[in-house]
Amino acid sequence: MSASWTWHGGGLDAARRHFGDGPWIDLSTGINPHAWPDASAVYVDWQRLPEREALTELEGAAAACFGVHPRHVCAVPGTEIGLRLVGWIVGGPARYVSPSYRTHGEMMPTATPITIEQAMVSDATLILANPNNPDGRVLPRAALLALVARRREGAWLLLDEAFADADPAISIADKIDDAHPLAVFRSFGKFFGLAGVRLGFVLAPTPVVAALRDMLGAWPVSAAAIAIGTAAYRDAAWIEAVRQRLEVDASALDRMLATAGLRAIGGCPLFRLIETEAAPMLFERLARRAILTRPFADTPRWLRIGLPADDAAMDRLGRALSDG
Amino acid sequence: MSASWTWHGGGLDAARRHFGDGPWIDLSTGINPHAWPDASAVYVDWQRLPEREALTELEGAAAACFGVHPRHVCAVPGTEIGLRLVGWIVGGPARYVSPSYRTHGEMMPTATPITIEQAMVSDATLILANPNNPDGRVLPRAALLALVARRREGAWLLLDEAFADADPAISIADKIDDAHPLAVFRSFGKFFGLAGVRLGFVLAPTPVVAALRDMLGAWPVSAAAIAIGTAAYRDAAWIEAVRQRLEVDASALDRMLATAGLRAIGGCPLFRLIETEAAPMLFERLARRAILTRPFADTPRWLRIGLPADDAAMDRLGRALSDG
Repeated sequence: MSASWTWHGGGLDAARRHFGDGPWIDLSTGINPHAWPDASAVYVDWQRLPEREALTELEGAAAACFGVHPRHVCAVPGTEIGLRLVGWIVGGPARYVSPSYRTHGEMMPTATPITIEQAMVSDATLILANPNNPDGRVLPRAALLALVARRREGAWLLLDEAFADADPAISIADKIDDAHPLAVFRSFGKFFGLAGVRLGFVLAPTPVVAALRDMLGAWPVSAAAIAIGTAAYRDAAWIEAVRQRLEVDASALDRMLATAGLRAIGGCPLFRLIETEAAPMLFERLARRAILTRPFADTPRWLRIGLPADDAAMDRLGRALSDG
Repeated sequence: MSASWTWHGGGLDAARRHFGDGPWIDLSTGINPHAWPDASAVYVDWQRLPEREALTELEGAAAACFGVHPRHVCAVPGTEIGLRLVGWIVGGPARYVSPSYRTHGEMMPTATPITIEQAMVSDATLILANPNNPDGRVLPRAALLALVARRREGAWLLLDEAFADADPAISIADKIDDAHPLAVFRSFGKFFGLAGVRLGFVLAPTPVVAALRDMLGAWPVSAAAIAIGTAAYRDAAWIEAVRQRLEVDASALDRMLATAGLRAIGGCPLFRLIETEAAPMLFERLARRAILTRPFADTPRWLRIGLPADDAAMDRLGRALSDG
């Protein structure tokens, strides 16, 4: 199985080359298939440097959504870059919970993996996703706040909330202040279904925000990221409607998986994780029918399946899963 | 005079608030007013994560333009970020030539300023722009290659070629290889007139490129940067035509300045630098007529004037300069 698929999701070009062309359905990522609809309609001034005031508006709109003061919010050109730069800023020894998002193991050169059980009693700098990817595990707020309180001098809780938008009650972004060693990472592209924009946010104490701005300079994100992001975060009606829709769609995916004799062992509204000895065979069978899912090199019994975009995609997935 | 204008160019919102609204002409940056025309027509897939293959195509198209092997090319979300990240990667003591682009003094915390004369005999890590901003000074290739050869063990020549596109003979990008301590920075937005895209390139030995990719992760630039950048760098006819046009326009600006009794002490096709005791008064007079230029806090006798977009803008600038 190629590393193109087990490294990150989204390797559709590689899948096309290996399995052939066709009407591919990409279920290998956790990106919302119901994208915020006005991205192409937003006016983008490509010619000028983005103004500081426009960046401030974007960070303010995002801060209001996250429930945190804008002084703790720094826009970054993708959470991927944000994770890696904060890893450099924080530095020092660190532990990352495994399994989780691959970058957590790469963002700090000296970080070593631990289980979630070990993480709950560690006092080191800790990299943790909530909800977790790929299993969707959600830690209660009280447990997360206890983790913040447990940090030893100089250690941080680096909390990846890339999949928290579907349920705002999961987030502890509102607990960010200058007194606590907590930094939270938020993704724009996943929930808004616009991963090509490359926009994310680091929420952190003001010294970390200042250090991050020093690394990014005056124009950290594109004019499109500012224009699209500001309008999308202000679209409260769409955000609320899509939260409900994702729950409905995820339930429909669960029913379809059950019909195929499969049951998710975890997930969040944007993906489900199944566990079966047949996972490698299922990945191949789906791929031969032009449906890309997300296998895991270290855990071949796992397969992560993103949310199909519509009934037609759901039907194709259902038929491909059922027709042995 | 507000720091909004002397920090970087492009602070039009701040100028509007201070001097009032109006049909502002922004001549405060060195961005080509004749933008590559198809940015809004290029199809951008905002929904998907950019594929690795598409990024490779962008870097290949840019490498062909720069005359360097693609293995030495790393796309970054703006040269501003590229300068700062390479500063972190290279580290150590450094000197930056002053006056030059403000970020050169910020990208390495321990860097200290030197004159260009001192730079020519220094063997430390050296940050240098060619052409220089704001005076347009161009060092001959032989002098630049001698500077590379002069580096002591572990020291680098970090060469900002943000304004080199108008005359490819200026660049020494073709001299990049793994044996020499040379990194070159190229800007997309200035020459192509699309600063809002946030795209730049670091050209460097492969270990530096690898370290930079480690800091940026798998999706360093947006889907728009990839789509627009690839198409623009491949548009050889436009690139050649605009090089000629910029020379013609810059000569017209020189004639207009002469009519106003002013003479550029330096510049490159995208801007001219004038020196006069009257510079602060000229900045104010132009701003009151809704024309923003670039003053310098450390050198109040200087004023940098970008290329007007068309005859109407040139006429307004000429009248505003002449009508005391």
